[in-house]
Amino acid sequence: MPNYDDHAANLHRMEPRDRRGEQMTPESPLLDTLVSSLRCLPGIGRKSAQRIAYHLLQRNRPGALKLAEALSRAMHGIAHCSRCRNFSEEELCGMCRNTARERSLLCIVESPADVKAVEEAGFRGLYFVLMGHLSPLDGIGPEDLGMDLLGKLLDEGETREVILATNSTVEGEATAHFISEMVKNRSLQVTRIAHGVPMGGELEYVDASTLSHALAGRRAFR
Amino acid sequence: MPNYDDHAANLHRMEPRDRRGEQMTPESPLLDTLVSSLRCLPGIGRKSAQRIAYHLLQRNRPGALKLAEALSRAMHGIAHCSRCRNFSEEELCGMCRNTARERSLLCIVESPADVKAVEEAGFRGLYFVLMGHLSPLDGIGPEDLGMDLLGKLLDEGETREVILATNSTVEGEATAHFISEMVKNRSLQVTRIAHGVPMGGELEYVDASTLSHALAGRRAFR
Repeated sequence: MPNYDDHAANLHRMEPRDRRGEQMTPESPLLDTLVSSLRCLPGIGRKSAQRIAYHLLQRNRPGALKLAEALSRAMHGIAHCSRCRNFSEEELCGMCRNTARERSLLCIVESPADVKAVEEAGFRGLYFVLMGHLSPLDGIGPEDLGMDLLGKLLDEGETREVILATNSTVEGEATAHFISEMVKNRSLQVTRIAHGVPMGGELEYVDASTLSHALAGRRAFR
Repeated sequence: MPNYDDHAANLHRMEPRDRRGEQMTPESPLLDTLVSSLRCLPGIGRKSAQRIAYHLLQRNRPGALKLAEALSRAMHGIAHCSRCRNFSEEELCGMCRNTARERSLLCIVESPADVKAVEEAGFRGLYFVLMGHLSPLDGIGPEDLGMDLLGKLLDEGETREVILATNSTVEGEATAHFISEMVKNRSLQVTRIAHGVPMGGELEYVDASTLSHALAGRRAFR
């Protein structure tokens, strides 16, 4: 308290009036560019980008350089498999080339992340990745989802059953329906993954729509 | 239900037994490297890293390439200011070179992020960035925080008041105490930023320690 007035005099520039008028000393332009570039990451806002930039500069420069290299190589090196449309560095991806897989099963998913999920569940057939779903309002039609490629693939005759694993959203269901027609026209078997109560789920907390699917899809008890 | 058995036969490879034994078809090595490199970002685990990698590949390759460039340039181009230790691309940072700032005030903070915060509050003096706090258990002593550099800076005679703005943690307080001794030895004024009830804060929800500081630091009402 004794030297408060003195103190206040020193800090006269802190008044809100000045805060708007006076320009802040600009930070390093490289740092500014880094912070704004980090915002291309999904879910990273201005504050998080800043925190990440400081963290990397202070604690993990080798990691950041490795990341820069990995980003650049991946963006230049990864394209799409010409058969299943999944990400691939080569013309045909590893799964499509793999003759040990169950090649008569074709699982249709919306995204490469879904391939990963189905793969982790133990599926060992082949995939077709739509890279999206039918969405007329966004101008996404069958040609954008590679339906012509899918048609050709079905005509090759290797596929015996098509498993529809699109999301259980309105768009996912519409996409599944569209594809089921394509498959039926070729007299192949078409199935949809089961929707029901998740493993470990308690009935009390399951939503009505899921429970109604679970009831409709009931099976003989063994 | 009719073709469940047929179905089950097709999916015999999905049994948990096989899940462990059988090797999954490896994904793209470039993608794997990208996912593992993304984990150098603070707070990003395996799942988030995967989601980010897919997002960039699917929707924002130019952004990812810009990020790669920005990371590499920043890591190579940003070092520390030789006077205040803040991040800087040049020998002396913009703030230390700026003669329009209140050069008799020296605000001491723990990190570059703190400089940003104090700057946004309207402070227009100079800074000294410790890049950490005293932490004997982690082997961080005064020499790691540039105390010798701080001593030299104080000896230059430009500084009239040192404002201690280290965090109000045990380590931050210990660091503030250590520096206050250095400053007093040079017969300069030393102050500590006020701790008290945050603006807009309701007494009911303020913790006892903060409120006790607010009471001890009360000032004449004007």
